[in-house]
Amino acid sequence: MRKGTLVVVSGFSGAGKGTVLAQVLTKRPDLYLSVSFTTRAPREKEQDGVNYHFITREEFQARINRGEFLEYAEYVGNYYGTSMQVIREKLEQGIDVILEIEIQGAAKVREKLPEAVSLFLVPPSFEELSRRLHDRGTDTEATIQKRLETARREVKEIVNYDYIVVNDTIDRAVEEVLAILTAEGCRKERRLHLIEGV
Amino acid sequence: MRKGTLVVVSGFSGAGKGTVLAQVLTKRPDLYLSVSFTTRAPREKEQDGVNYHFITREEFQARINRGEFLEYAEYVGNYYGTSMQVIREKLEQGIDVILEIEIQGAAKVREKLPEAVSLFLVPPSFEELSRRLHDRGTDTEATIQKRLETARREVKEIVNYDYIVVNDTIDRAVEEVLAILTAEGCRKERRLHLIEGV
Repeated sequence: MRKGTLVVVSGFSGAGKGTVLAQVLTKRPDLYLSVSFTTRAPREKEQDGVNYHFITREEFQARINRGEFLEYAEYVGNYYGTSMQVIREKLEQGIDVILEIEIQGAAKVREKLPEAVSLFLVPPSFEELSRRLHDRGTDTEATIQKRLETARREVKEIVNYDYIVVNDTIDRAVEEVLAILTAEGCRKERRLHLIEGV
Repeated sequence: MRKGTLVVVSGFSGAGKGTVLAQVLTKRPDLYLSVSFTTRAPREKEQDGVNYHFITREEFQARINRGEFLEYAEYVGNYYGTSMQVIREKLEQGIDVILEIEIQGAAKVREKLPEAVSLFLVPPSFEELSRRLHDRGTDTEATIQKRLETARREVKEIVNYDYIVVNDTIDRAVEEVLAILTAEGCRKERRLHLIEGV
């Protein structure tokens, strides 16, 4: 039985992860997008159970104590975490899983599941990143500056990822993510069972 | 400057390499398909300089002596070889190169150019392979049996390749080869220069 591939997706805040992944899922409805738990407040239009499972700090802490998270991290004052059990189940069923996660979380996932594939989405330039954060209109100027500083610090972590996708046009970024998914499914390690019959 | 990717493609005789690669080149005319040198006789419709550079054993031997080959090998009584210089030039120019080559040659290329990516094209089953070799109508029954025996021996070498593409339908095999090319172009090693500006 073919196991699914876990694809970890990170990127600077404002690099367009949400938009790119939404289109990837439209083209590959068989994928499972892992829904994280968070203690941060929902943004306008975000739905509980769809964008995140929004829970209180107390509930998050209880889940940490029960060992339920594949990884969890605190980021800009809020907790974010990923349920281990759901991801394992999907992979065992042969379903490819996409996990959108920040850099610290991705490092922990790589540690626990070395077979995970990771990709980092970058904007074409820092100027463009700044423009997108301002256009989004969801953050204060102070928060935007904090996000940009964080991004500058995070650049050196990109070397730990398997793939870099440049989000210059959405279509091209979507095509590259889809190609990475298809190619990873063709990797020898995932296909040797097919040639046993040959 | 981005360097090109060298993709080494092998597969059992009759697995459909020619058909799949022809369609890949239609969709990606920017690719360079390496043309090998061989001492075997051209098949009907094969053109010198397109399918192979057809040369005599004496000329082949002279090129071996001059160290011109990235790899060469003898297979079913004929020499096959790949020019090192042409491939290096294309890669330096940022052009992706596809090299269709048998298993022994692929092993030598991996040795000399470890950054090469390799994929093995398999038919969906041995029965299908036998059917395709008979349908092709270019070989005697004895040659077909020899090819099938060779394929059975070669199965254990597939583990040395990075990717396995199953040619059950041409369209799917073409899509997978194209995805592998796109994904390999997104690999961190080939894209770190892009984020220096970020």
